[in-house]
Amino acid sequence: MKEQALKELLNSLTWEEKIGQLVQLSGDFFHADQLAVGPQKKLGIDQRIVDQVGSVLNVTGAEKTKEIQDRHMAKSRHKIPLLFMADIIYGYRTIFPIPLGLGATWNPDLIESAYQQTAEEAKAAGAHVTFAPMVDLVRDARWGRTLESTGEDPVLNAAFAKAMVTGLQKDLLNGGGIASCVKHFAAYGAAEGGREYNTVDMSERRLRQEYLPAYKAAVDAGCQLVMTSFNTYDGMPVTGNQFLLKEILRKEWGFDGVIISDYAAIQELIAHGVAADDREAAKLAIEATTDIDMKTPCYAKELEPLIENGEISTELVDRSVYRVLKLKNDLGLFEDPYRGASQALEEQAFLTEEKRRLAKKVSAESVVLLQNRNQVLPLAPNKEKVLLVGPYGDNQELIGLWAVHGQREDVVTIKKGFENYLDSDHLLYTQGCDMLEDYAFLGEFGATKDQIEQLGLDEQMKATELETALALAQQADTIVFALGEHTMQSGEAGSRTDITLPKIQQVFLQKMVELKKKTVLIVISGRPLVLTKEIEQVDAILQAWFPGTEGGNALADIVFGQTNPSGRLSMSFPYSVGQLPLYYSEFKTGRPLTSPTHKGRFVSKYLDSPNEPLFSFGFGLSYSKVEYSELTLNSEYMNESLTISVTVKNRSDRSAQETVQLYIQDVTGSVVRPIKELKAFQKVDLRADEEKKVTFHLTRADLKFYTKEMLFEEEPGKFIVFVGPNVKETLEATFDLK
Amino acid sequence: MKEQALKELLNSLTWEEKIGQLVQLSGDFFHADQLAVGPQKKLGIDQRIVDQVGSVLNVTGAEKTKEIQDRHMAKSRHKIPLLFMADIIYGYRTIFPIPLGLGATWNPDLIESAYQQTAEEAKAAGAHVTFAPMVDLVRDARWGRTLESTGEDPVLNAAFAKAMVTGLQKDLLNGGGIASCVKHFAAYGAAEGGREYNTVDMSERRLRQEYLPAYKAAVDAGCQLVMTSFNTYDGMPVTGNQFLLKEILRKEWGFDGVIISDYAAIQELIAHGVAADDREAAKLAIEATTDIDMKTPCYAKELEPLIENGEISTELVDRSVYRVLKLKNDLGLFEDPYRGASQALEEQAFLTEEKRRLAKKVSAESVVLLQNRNQVLPLAPNKEKVLLVGPYGDNQELIGLWAVHGQREDVVTIKKGFENYLDSDHLLYTQGCDMLEDYAFLGEFGATKDQIEQLGLDEQMKATELETALALAQQADTIVFALGEHTMQSGEAGSRTDITLPKIQQVFLQKMVELKKKTVLIVISGRPLVLTKEIEQVDAILQAWFPGTEGGNALADIVFGQTNPSGRLSMSFPYSVGQLPLYYSEFKTGRPLTSPTHKGRFVSKYLDSPNEPLFSFGFGLSYSKVEYSELTLNSEYMNESLTISVTVKNRSDRSAQETVQLYIQDVTGSVVRPIKELKAFQKVDLRADEEKKVTFHLTRADLKFYTKEMLFEEEPGKFIVFVGPNVKETLEATFDLK
Repeated sequence: MKEQALKELLNSLTWEEKIGQLVQLSGDFFHADQLAVGPQKKLGIDQRIVDQVGSVLNVTGAEKTKEIQDRHMAKSRHKIPLLFMADIIYGYRTIFPIPLGLGATWNPDLIESAYQQTAEEAKAAGAHVTFAPMVDLVRDARWGRTLESTGEDPVLNAAFAKAMVTGLQKDLLNGGGIASCVKHFAAYGAAEGGREYNTVDMSERRLRQEYLPAYKAAVDAGCQLVMTSFNTYDGMPVTGNQFLLKEILRKEWGFDGVIISDYAAIQELIAHGVAADDREAAKLAIEATTDIDMKTPCYAKELEPLIENGEISTELVDRSVYRVLKLKNDLGLFEDPYRGASQALEEQAFLTEEKRRLAKKVSAESVVLLQNRNQVLPLAPNKEKVLLVGPYGDNQELIGLWAVHGQREDVVTIKKGFENYLDSDHLLYTQGCDMLEDYAFLGEFGATKDQIEQLGLDEQMKATELETALALAQQADTIVFALGEHTMQSGEAGSRTDITLPKIQQVFLQKMVELKKKTVLIVISGRPLVLTKEIEQVDAILQAWFPGTEGGNALADIVFGQTNPSGRLSMSFPYSVGQLPLYYSEFKTGRPLTSPTHKGRFVSKYLDSPNEPLFSFGFGLSYSKVEYSELTLNSEYMNESLTISVTVKNRSDRSAQETVQLYIQDVTGSVVRPIKELKAFQKVDLRADEEKKVTFHLTRADLKFYTKEMLFEEEPGKFIVFVGPNVKETLEATFDLK
Repeated sequence: MKEQALKELLNSLTWEEKIGQLVQLSGDFFHADQLAVGPQKKLGIDQRIVDQVGSVLNVTGAEKTKEIQDRHMAKSRHKIPLLFMADIIYGYRTIFPIPLGLGATWNPDLIESAYQQTAEEAKAAGAHVTFAPMVDLVRDARWGRTLESTGEDPVLNAAFAKAMVTGLQKDLLNGGGIASCVKHFAAYGAAEGGREYNTVDMSERRLRQEYLPAYKAAVDAGCQLVMTSFNTYDGMPVTGNQFLLKEILRKEWGFDGVIISDYAAIQELIAHGVAADDREAAKLAIEATTDIDMKTPCYAKELEPLIENGEISTELVDRSVYRVLKLKNDLGLFEDPYRGASQALEEQAFLTEEKRRLAKKVSAESVVLLQNRNQVLPLAPNKEKVLLVGPYGDNQELIGLWAVHGQREDVVTIKKGFENYLDSDHLLYTQGCDMLEDYAFLGEFGATKDQIEQLGLDEQMKATELETALALAQQADTIVFALGEHTMQSGEAGSRTDITLPKIQQVFLQKMVELKKKTVLIVISGRPLVLTKEIEQVDAILQAWFPGTEGGNALADIVFGQTNPSGRLSMSFPYSVGQLPLYYSEFKTGRPLTSPTHKGRFVSKYLDSPNEPLFSFGFGLSYSKVEYSELTLNSEYMNESLTISVTVKNRSDRSAQETVQLYIQDVTGSVVRPIKELKAFQKVDLRADEEKKVTFHLTRADLKFYTKEMLFEEEPGKFIVFVGPNVKETLEATFDLK
């Protein structure tokens, strides 16, 4: 449809029809036989509203979406199709690792491909919009949604934000991909105390410098929608925050796509205490240019009276409606309301060999080898007896909490993967230990007491499993532990104050390591766990996140040396929860640990803990030793740009992938600057014994920051460049910016 | 001296003489025979500078100060006396409880008296200025200087700030008291991760609403000086922060007294990376109107060249010098450079009976009874056998880290106090357990390895002590444990990531409680500790802070029922370090725990911990049961003010002190408001069985806050009033503000 026709369509709508476009309901409303009873009634949504609604939440599948779309189109006076939006965060049917694992690949190009594949599956299944990418910067591992983020760094997160949007929206306006909705704008990851939905408070300087860049990168990459976050910023929940939505997002960044509230966030303005009732909530949200109300009756019931009373302008609402209609039009829904989705296409698209191959590759690149004492890894296939134990040893829950459309039965377990390398003489397996000591918290998902009691192993089984594990261990040369968090311990509202392995697994691990076998620990988790005890207990540690559908194969390839691990942490791993929040790019203090003038007690530190994390940002081992040398700058001065090169040499007889990282320090600024800031990185392939010169081009633009006067500018003066395999082990050089 | 004469004096000074007034050095410079060697040389301070210096850091004692003053006056061309400034934080010779304990008294009037007494001692000892009060709001118990703060609440901290300044400066301009220097301006208590000297980042809204009120109260109470804090605010260390110092402190608050940097903070602008060298550091600081440079050569060596080069104005420096001269003049130093200090006066003033009595009273009111299962407390004197054990049982280290001029030998130990109530047949004592499992961290204070090895008990003694304790416990009816943090584990640079009792004490406690005797735990600490295990292990817990010189007597009075405990927490006690930061006045979220619309998982909480603290703000038990009833408002509407009353009845046969607390909630605001905010409190005496009506007058001014537009105003609408014995157990009523 041409712009003119779309405007005419807008003008031909009644207020009720217009406002309907600004309302999003979940699937249950479209299946309900009787809206007069049940939760729908409680929400105050009647059939009239449902009939006018503009978009649908979390209904997918070609058949289901078609059925709803057909019914809707039959009723729609103007034949305006529904938009189907869904949480498709790290895969649709083929599930990739959780985003924190994607962050650990340090490979945005690869992740762009992954999201392109995801979009292909999702599109086949009738989804038009995905609520992805989630690009919230996070520095407090207590927060459950750490799982959905690529980590702690603005530059790295921005690179992934761009890659994900680009992958999802490939050829979007020509019928390809699906529309991307970046979330959660803004600073949702800074919830105080890592407690879900908690207040966010920070300076505008920190917001702009650290938290906004990843959202900006998504917007610049053309993402079609933005979702508001649940948190406050400067005392105002984002869904009603004009500074963030109108000033920054719309005006400064020029975003004219659809802004959608997070789930029920408009009505939650009441609980926040900035609106007295639905009407005030609706007014705050629409005035902040929030276009779509997800799952509350606020817009549906209150926008019209607000217009009638002259409390909001008709233009304001028209503008929002137009944005929604334009999105539908841009997606070609007026021409094909299914956008090509069909069951036949699903069959072609889902879990193809190519997709599984890519999922395995991504999964492999996401795994971080944290420790490898005495080079116990890799193991030689069929050379020694390997005992695999632990609740994740033969478990299809490797896809994590937020793989909403993923199916457990598609998942390759670790045991299955190990069977690629070990025959039954060499692979011993028993679960050995329960996942949790207590499943009661699952009651929050509606599990009944009886159901909870059925979960996990009973006392008898626990005893037998332990006995079996100890007995099998006696026969084994190496024990591989597959331990980790329960799926429900991370993800939305999965905040924890204790981020160690579940106690029952800790006890099991301790008993088993006392047998003094070679030991390998595979950690499955949605966040950086505290592994301070474990690094003493076991020889090798592989941080595997929730590795996705092909997780078992990818892990087996690494364990048995088929793949050289290359993952690098995109988030610091703390010694203890008492160090949080924790991030490498901390600001200089007046009394640094290495102060020349202050010694001993009176420097910025803890009495009982290092300042540094247990495992640093950027850290990850491989089976190769890669040497860095000859850090060279083409000049001592930068005018417009600088060429920086370093030589990396693979001192091993196997090929490796090396992530070369470049950090800077702006030595003196008009405001305090971070100790180190990532500015660039390259993931390079190195054949056995190969040496490569890796070259970076640093420009003035890379040195910009928010100055004292809040201008985004670079300041002349001295800079230090650090290049190395992680933030801690770097070569240094200096230059002056003219 | 008249103002005119003072101005003439200023005009008669050379630049070198003027700038000298802006420099503060510590005592070692005045005793050094040869400044050409040693640390003084390293600092770049020569005799010429020392001779012109305006003030002296941390030299006290009538004799020592007189000697330095005399030598200085003899050399001073214009006979400008030195100002003696010192850290006199919670007592000079008579040591009161640490400020966190003072906060727990909820009795600003009493604390005013305490600071008046302190000023009397300090004045006798030649101090002119104390670097007190420290009023930094703190919500993260990891921070060591929690010890020096009165707690987490703006209103309570402001009340104590006023009381302390008033007490210290009583009759100041007539020769009484000593000058007060409020610190650390501003927001030093919000160091990220509770790590000393770390970055502070917050919105201006939070700064003004929560962190500034206590400093403002001190300024309004007339404090003569303000000390800048070490931390950054909005990217700029406070010592060079024009927004905080010039805009807010000087312009908005009208403060024209002396601003002094914290120790070496001007030169630390270099380490912070906002100044390239001493000259730039000096320029930043003086331009922010920091008048005195404490302990660095920046001002002494760089101000004159800065003036000569025209980089700073002569008026700027003159203004600072004048402020220092005016302070000296206001204190009467031109007339009496000793300000009446003498050894005779010291003898009269120090540790008088009156002062000890007051110290005991303050100490008693600071102790918080956290738990009293089966009413094991109070104990009956000489009725049962009491075993006192633990490293604080007979230990004079009850005055904490920052009682710089206190003397351990003046301190009444807990054992000594118990002897007032128990004869030798009824009092059993042994240390039982060492303070720490490891003293290595004391190396940071310069202790050598050999010295560290001498500390604590040796292995043999440890075994013997434990054996003795277990044996004595068999004979005892009740065991009283005196456990706690080592003095050096809190205070400046005493940040800890683990804030439980030292491990060795935990192990000891566990062994002892297995004997199933009645048990009482006295906790000595500089911060809220995590006592989650201990509340299960023992019957009663008394939180005693570092209770000061008379701590042992005060505690004995409480344990044996002579005093009914009345202390109330001024800071929340966490379940675990994983809850931090923690404070009662948290902001409303969109998904509160008690959400009507969101149940189960999707509310703002942790999966594995309550949101609430283990012990709430305002909480404290007594030996009486005080009932609250009849919360009455004189109107449903407030125009200018509201009278709120509540009836409290002492349902016990002993007199009690009850702290009645009034909180409000502003139900809907233009920005998100806290769940509860303390607005008023009264500490009332209740005789046995007495009933009293307690009346509060709430005014419009009490309801002001920083609105969306950052105006400090009240907004019409609904309010909830909560009145009760702590923040959690309250009666409620509502009113509307017109």
